[in-house]
Amino acid sequence: MSERVYSLSEVVGTSGESIEKAIEVAVDRAQKTLRHVRWFEVVTTRGYAHPERGIEYQVTLKVGFQLED
Amino acid sequence: MSERVYSLSEVVGTSGESIEKAIEVAVDRAQKTLRHVRWFEVVTTRGYAHPERGIEYQVTLKVGFQLED
Amino acid sequence: MSERVYSLSEVVGTSGESIEKAIEVAVDRAQKTLRHVRWFEVVTTRGYAHPERGIEYQVTLKVGFQLED
Amino acid sequence: MSERVYSLSEVVGTSGESIEKAIEVAVDRAQKTLRHVRWFEVVTTRGYAHPERGIEYQVTLKVGFQLED
Amino acid sequence: MSERVYSLSEVVGTSGESIEKAIEVAVDRAQKTLRHVRWFEVVTTRGYAHPERGIEYQVTLKVGFQLED
Amino acid sequence: MSERVYSLSEVVGTSGESIEKAIEVAVDRAQKTLRHVRWFEVVTTRGYAHPERGIEYQVTLKVGFQLED
Amino acid sequence: MSERVYSLSEVVGTSGESIEKAIEVAVDRAQKTLRHVRWFEVVTTRGYAHPERGIEYQVTLKVGFQLED
Amino acid sequence: MSERVYSLSEVVGTSGESIEKAIEVAVDRAQKTLRHVRWFEVVTTRGYAHPERGIEYQVTLKVGFQLED
Amino acid sequence: MSERVYSLSEVVGTSGESIEKAIEVAVDRAQKTLRHVRWFEVVTTRGYAHPERGIEYQVTLKVGFQLED
Amino acid sequence: MSERVYSLSEVVGTSGESIEKAIEVAVDRAQKTLRHVRWFEVVTTRGYAHPERGIEYQVTLKVGFQLED
Amino acid sequence: MSERVYSLSEVVGTSGESIEKAIEVAVDRAQKTLRHVRWFEVVTTRGYAHPERGIEYQVTLKVGFQLED
Amino acid sequence: MSERVYSLSEVVGTSGESIEKAIEVAVDRAQKTLRHVRWFEVVTTRGYAHPERGIEYQVTLKVGFQLED
Repeated sequence: MSERVYSLSEVVGTSGESIEKAIEVAVDRAQKTLRHVRWFEVVTTRGYAHPERGIEYQVTLKVGFQLED
Repeated sequence: MSERVYSLSEVVGTSGESIEKAIEVAVDRAQKTLRHVRWFEVVTTRGYAHPERGIEYQVTLKVGFQLED
Repeated sequence: MSERVYSLSEVVGTSGESIEKAIEVAVDRAQKTLRHVRWFEVVTTRGYAHPERGIEYQVTLKVGFQLED
Repeated sequence: MSERVYSLSEVVGTSGESIEKAIEVAVDRAQKTLRHVRWFEVVTTRGYAHPERGIEYQVTLKVGFQLED
Repeated sequence: MSERVYSLSEVVGTSGESIEKAIEVAVDRAQKTLRHVRWFEVVTTRGYAHPERGIEYQVTLKVGFQLED
Repeated sequence: MSERVYSLSEVVGTSGESIEKAIEVAVDRAQKTLRHVRWFEVVTTRGYAHPERGIEYQVTLKVGFQLED
Repeated sequence: MSERVYSLSEVVGTSGESIEKAIEVAVDRAQKTLRHVRWFEVVTTRGYAHPERGIEYQVTLKVGFQLED
Repeated sequence: MSERVYSLSEVVGTSGESIEKAIEVAVDRAQKTLRHVRWFEVVTTRGYAHPERGIEYQVTLKVGFQLED
Repeated sequence: MSERVYSLSEVVGTSGESIEKAIEVAVDRAQKTLRHVRWFEVVTTRGYAHPERGIEYQVTLKVGFQLED
Repeated sequence: MSERVYSLSEVVGTSGESIEKAIEVAVDRAQKTLRHVRWFEVVTTRGYAHPERGIEYQVTLKVGFQLED
Repeated sequence: MSERVYSLSEVVGTSGESIEKAIEVAVDRAQKTLRHVRWFEVVTTRGYAHPERGIEYQVTLKVGFQLED
Repeated sequence: MSERVYSLSEVVGTSGESIEKAIEVAVDRAQKTLRHVRWFEVVTTRGYAHPERGIEYQVTLKVGFQLED
């Protein structure tokens, strides 16, 4: 077993649609900047409540990605 | 910058449909009683498992609203 | 399944007798102000230690009650 | 009031679709093995991020079930 | 010193009488199914508040028992 | 020792000046609505960082007040 | 308002009788060594389960006492 | 992606040698009873301090295993 | 509502003067490297106690900033 | 690198002036009794709200000091 | 069952060798000052990273010891 | 005392050998990318259990490093 190293980056995705969409938005954005994104963990789920436009979900994730040697 | 004050109220929304629906139900109800609801934070996600009717989601939120002067 | 909404109120009951008595005092008081009190969760158990009069228990509870439509 | 006893079992459901689907998968599986499943609590929401196949949700639950006498 | 292994099982005892009685009910039930029950830790103390019948305590415990070789 | 009951209300005070000022703003506002405010506990300290106007502190408190009989 | 300083000491009381008795045992012992014991907070409630002798409660407390100048 | 389900079992391994040895003892024991053990998470590291025989490590783990269909 | 993504960076500011000054030092430094710094959350407040030079505050913050598309 | 040992003592400083002043009061007092005080960590920030005399801050710290051989 | 009382003391052991060695150093030092040391719990594992001398482990423990009557 | 600023980066080191080796692997990797690495804190200790190859430790650390002016 080789000795791999991973790093964790904390990101917040937002969506007016659903929690899953906010997660997807955050993971997609992480994948643009970071190679080898592997997993995520939800840290907090929050949101804004707009009187007319409804709810905007804000999901904070830790995104794990493998570091290259 | 003026010195605004907010208050947090803890509510539990329930839904047989989805976590988002349970959040929406709770935020809608809070907006009926409280003015100036601004944001929410999910505290816990729980639920009942009914043998026939399936799952009922119970999402506990802290709902933040601005207090008037 | 209808979409019920509950609210949580945080109260501290005190008693020189027992933890259960302090809980009961807090729940009784909540039931005077709030309708449809359903459940409680103990948050912290603290107390004062009086040299002569012994221990006074202070139990912090979250009390859950159903909101009317 | 009789003295009922419940037990909690920790399970992880997975789904490529949604958090609710992962919860449902875990509760369904628990109901195959355990009688009298009553409620669940979400412990953590995690997932894998696959470059092509998208996100796989992994939701850890505590599932509560009533023990028979 | 031999290398013993223990396991932890999470159970909820209920009682209309006291927190201690709810713990006892849970430990007694665990001892019927599991051999070599050794210790417990209280995880949460909750309860129902019945308008007429008073409070029902629900104490969640982790019960530790020694595994046989 | 009489059996007093307290309640806890969660409020957020804001100030562009200091953490103490944000606490004071929240406690002052609570004292306008609630009688017999006795103590507070800081839950979280957050803030906004404005490019020109500097930092705005947002301190979330639980404010404890004694309930009248 | 003078500037008082308190210290916290962590102690574990045990009792075969009740949680309250274990707290009392710990507070009594603390008062023998420490002057000006003022308050306590329950940190954890654990216990041993003896097959014949029943349950022994072990309650860990933080005991607060005022330091003299 | 198929919908797999995992379960978590909490075990305590003990060793007079090292933390790693206590983990290994617990995982080995779990693998005797449970099929498809996949991962573990350390929950707490505790131990006994014997005046003559030195330290005995007690490591509490959650052990994850895949459930068969 | 567009789908914005934010990132969180953990920084520690130090100051011999005050907690607010340590926060300001950390936010200022973050703003030199990161564009669109929006908010912060205090994670821990620690410090060194120097016998002659007094206290140096060390405040750990999570600093949130908006990612560009 | 020699093998140093440190100890942590939990103290509460109070001040009618500021959080920093309450920390300083606690650290100063610890330095009177304990040699080689090195660092501190804020555990909780609480306070009393006096109707006339304003706020009294009560900051609980863990104070770390090096033990002599 | 007699009513024993224990106390917990928080200590930090350091070692350039291993986590176990740092624990041992802390427990040994505690046993020099305190009689009847019985158990310990690891609170945090930290360390310094020296560019040339490698890692120094700093393990914070709560050490439990029985108080004499 | 100058006003230094530090940053924290979260990394996961893996090793088939020991927890210390996994920490060392993570710190070594961090030192390749980041200057002035000063300290670390263990966040979680997890691992995979391979039926034939034994245990692979996965230790998540926060690594602190000083930022240059």
